[in-house]
Amino acid sequence: MKAIVDFCVVPMGVGVSVSKYVAACERVLKQAGLETRLHAYGTNIEGEWDAVFAAIKRCHEVVHQMGAPRITSTIRLGTRTDRNQGMDDKVRSVEEKLSRGDTD
Amino acid sequence: MKAIVDFCVVPMGVGVSVSKYVAACERVLKQAGLETRLHAYGTNIEGEWDAVFAAIKRCHEVVHQMGAPRITSTIRLGTRTDRNQGMDDKVRSVEEKLSRGDTD
Amino acid sequence: MKAIVDFCVVPMGVGVSVSKYVAACERVLKQAGLETRLHAYGTNIEGEWDAVFAAIKRCHEVVHQMGAPRITSTIRLGTRTDRNQGMDDKVRSVEEKLSRGDTD
Amino acid sequence: MKAIVDFCVVPMGVGVSVSKYVAACERVLKQAGLETRLHAYGTNIEGEWDAVFAAIKRCHEVVHQMGAPRITSTIRLGTRTDRNQGMDDKVRSVEEKLSRGDTD
Repeated sequence: MKAIVDFCVVPMGVGVSVSKYVAACERVLKQAGLETRLHAYGTNIEGEWDAVFAAIKRCHEVVHQMGAPRITSTIRLGTRTDRNQGMDDKVRSVEEKLSRGDTD
Repeated sequence: MKAIVDFCVVPMGVGVSVSKYVAACERVLKQAGLETRLHAYGTNIEGEWDAVFAAIKRCHEVVHQMGAPRITSTIRLGTRTDRNQGMDDKVRSVEEKLSRGDTD
Repeated sequence: MKAIVDFCVVPMGVGVSVSKYVAACERVLKQAGLETRLHAYGTNIEGEWDAVFAAIKRCHEVVHQMGAPRITSTIRLGTRTDRNQGMDDKVRSVEEKLSRGDTD
Repeated sequence: MKAIVDFCVVPMGVGVSVSKYVAACERVLKQAGLETRLHAYGTNIEGEWDAVFAAIKRCHEVVHQMGAPRITSTIRLGTRTDRNQGMDDKVRSVEEKLSRGDTD
């Protein structure tokens, strides 16, 4: 089962600056061979369910190892059986409607 | 690694009434032996990471089998290494402060 | 427009223990006259849209005043035009299906 | 109070294809003069708190007017008092650490 996920990791107890932890997670996700797109409030991830969630678990392990005693993450998680749709398809589908001025 | 999770499943393409899908997920979580607390916008889940996410995967599989062609879920996910804290501890900690009128 | 919201506030830069900030937000929500249900990973809130979001803004202001330099919150937000449904209706609808063993 | 928000709107009861509703929300956000970045699982928004949440309310109104009887949205919401940080700053901060290979 393929999943498209949006993952936002928030280390707690390490101050207000968390970009080094986010960068470490980006590396974990890349090393897992997953497609990712970083944005200003999380990271889009595309891949097989088991690979995606193994990598997210690894992110929590790595961020704890870096010294964060507590982590609260949020995940949006999409699966579909009707058709194969990737991250770029989702964005393109909206952008086409925007460029055509579709209202229906 | 123990996790406290808040899981909200949203089946798409099956109309506006989704409680039967949420009920099916509750059964999946219980059958997995996980502690759960249903609330009005999701379910708190407590357990070992692998057990929790295997059950969430099973929820997606079951909801697809029930006929939903698309699912979008949201997950809040907490882990900590500094101490062992359960769902009930989290609620109690806030309620104690409320009852004492703590403001610091 | 009535809204049912699930709100989880995460103060950053103030250490790992955040229950006093959550308790302060509970007070803000109550003072705003909103119906709330605290759970282990957030708070369900029911009310008119403008009242709900004015209170959430006030929560951020109060948590900053308490000393948190950064806050990251997550919100699930539901509105519907087909019928009037409260928080308790949502939970009851799932529990009825669980107690009857509905699978369809 | 300035906010950086990540907004994901999910119309329910209108089938599996929701890109036209997402496109309509993009137009609402642009018309409100807000900075936005569309991604595969939501939209980053930057602006003053009141302007951001007025626009999100307008998105719900518009999506209901387009025929969706029920909407469930998710919002990540960040505010900070320690410094002024925009969406692009957040991404840049992570990318700098990635390019330098920072691990601390």
